[in-house]
Amino acid sequence: MTPSTRSTSFPPRAPADFSINQMTVKQLSLPDLVTACADLGVRGVGLWREPVKEYGVEAAARLVRAAGLRVTTLCRGGFLTAVDPGERARALADNRAAVEEAAALGTDTLVLVCGGLPDGDRDLPAARERVADALAELAPYAAGHAVRLAVEPLHPMFAADRCVVSTLGQALDLAERFPAEQVGVCVDTYHVWWDDLAPAALARAGAGGRLHAFQLADWTTPLPRGVLTGRGRLGDGSIDFRAWRALAEAAGYRGPVEVELFNEALWAADGREVLADTIHRYTTHTR
Amino acid sequence: MTPSTRSTSFPPRAPADFSINQMTVKQLSLPDLVTACADLGVRGVGLWREPVKEYGVEAAARLVRAAGLRVTTLCRGGFLTAVDPGERARALADNRAAVEEAAALGTDTLVLVCGGLPDGDRDLPAARERVADALAELAPYAAGHAVRLAVEPLHPMFAADRCVVSTLGQALDLAERFPAEQVGVCVDTYHVWWDDLAPAALARAGAGGRLHAFQLADWTTPLPRGVLTGRGRLGDGSIDFRAWRALAEAAGYRGPVEVELFNEALWAADGREVLADTIHRYTTHTR
Repeated sequence: MTPSTRSTSFPPRAPADFSINQMTVKQLSLPDLVTACADLGVRGVGLWREPVKEYGVEAAARLVRAAGLRVTTLCRGGFLTAVDPGERARALADNRAAVEEAAALGTDTLVLVCGGLPDGDRDLPAARERVADALAELAPYAAGHAVRLAVEPLHPMFAADRCVVSTLGQALDLAERFPAEQVGVCVDTYHVWWDDLAPAALARAGAGGRLHAFQLADWTTPLPRGVLTGRGRLGDGSIDFRAWRALAEAAGYRGPVEVELFNEALWAADGREVLADTIHRYTTHTR
Repeated sequence: MTPSTRSTSFPPRAPADFSINQMTVKQLSLPDLVTACADLGVRGVGLWREPVKEYGVEAAARLVRAAGLRVTTLCRGGFLTAVDPGERARALADNRAAVEEAAALGTDTLVLVCGGLPDGDRDLPAARERVADALAELAPYAAGHAVRLAVEPLHPMFAADRCVVSTLGQALDLAERFPAEQVGVCVDTYHVWWDDLAPAALARAGAGGRLHAFQLADWTTPLPRGVLTGRGRLGDGSIDFRAWRALAEAAGYRGPVEVELFNEALWAADGREVLADTIHRYTTHTR
């Protein structure tokens, strides 16, 4: 197969900026994922802490480095809203460990999901302020490891139980309390696509040097019970990926673009085929 | 039973500003609902078009009038995002009928759920603009019947399939293109509770004379499949109703407060008991 025919064959070789988030194909072991990436020309991968730790952080780092893969993000730190001092101390310690793992893996970006309301708590503004307090402790530590924290706003349907930071504007309000090289944002289309204020916030993030990660997933309905695993393949849902990618580029973003899907049907399928299909859809729907 | 003991008995008499949205107790027939309201001192009811039409609009109007009940809102018009000219014409005709039904029932407020994206459509801004175009046709017609249109922002999780207006700020941006006595907003805590910009928008709505309806439901997790019927009883979830009610009052709102729950478990229970419990929770959790 020559390079010229490769570009029209299925599966297509992955574009240079494409990155696969490990969760999209979590049925693949880390070695199988790395092999599949090599076979399909994927140059970037977003990793998750749990499977990395299971494999061994140092071993995982060696594996991806040997394959010439770039770790585009580590997912995820965060869960910083506890009121209880002991819980809070444990969360901070866990986030320092996440920073160290990110550094070991050679990625400069740790994605943070900030955490929901503690049980029985109804004070969103106070929970958001506790996130800011935690960032103040973590950001310098991360910077000391050459790791940037990327605050990810999650869709408002997760505000109670997963992330009290619901919009890109809020995430930037938090990040901008700190130096841009320490704290920025992670923008996932799945979480922000509905928000008429998000395009301006994306430009603001870019102008401030805070657009640390950019992820894609499509919005499909009906949502499943618990709403966590209903992310759609690119092109299956309501999101205009060409528009969002153009907005990110207009904001100055030149980094990798991760596709991150949580989807039971995809997890039940062949992981290599899911990866190939994801590349195909990325090529088809974002340009 | 004397008035003084009534106030401490269970169920409590409904506070003067309490209104029950018919959907909360949809297992009750309209006559049973009216009787239950009389027995429990409920003075306001938010009605839905489908059960009202099934009973007969004029008969329903006579029934509630004879009981001294105030119809606080009619739910709902809207679904104004069609691109197809025939569909659009049918939607406008249906909304004019809804205006006439509201007038016949003696309510001054028609709640609008604006509609989602047409199948295969990914252009949210264009869909929102079609809503504005439709409001321009409907608002004068409604005003001619002494009915105000109340644009209801729905939670962003409904942006694709139910309502492209996702925040109170957006709803106000739409409403403010028209006179305040023609187009305002309906604020439901379930839809806006997560939004840090909603309190300021609520004040803006009040200052502009556009806070036409105020509804309560609690946010509970996990959300059920389809996410439509997961609304929680007041006090069961994450929403601080005292804070939201205080915000509405600070915005100058002195109107009825509807409790509107869509909840399979409540629909399976005894409707009168659900109504009594709803009054009790309203009294307990909003002051």
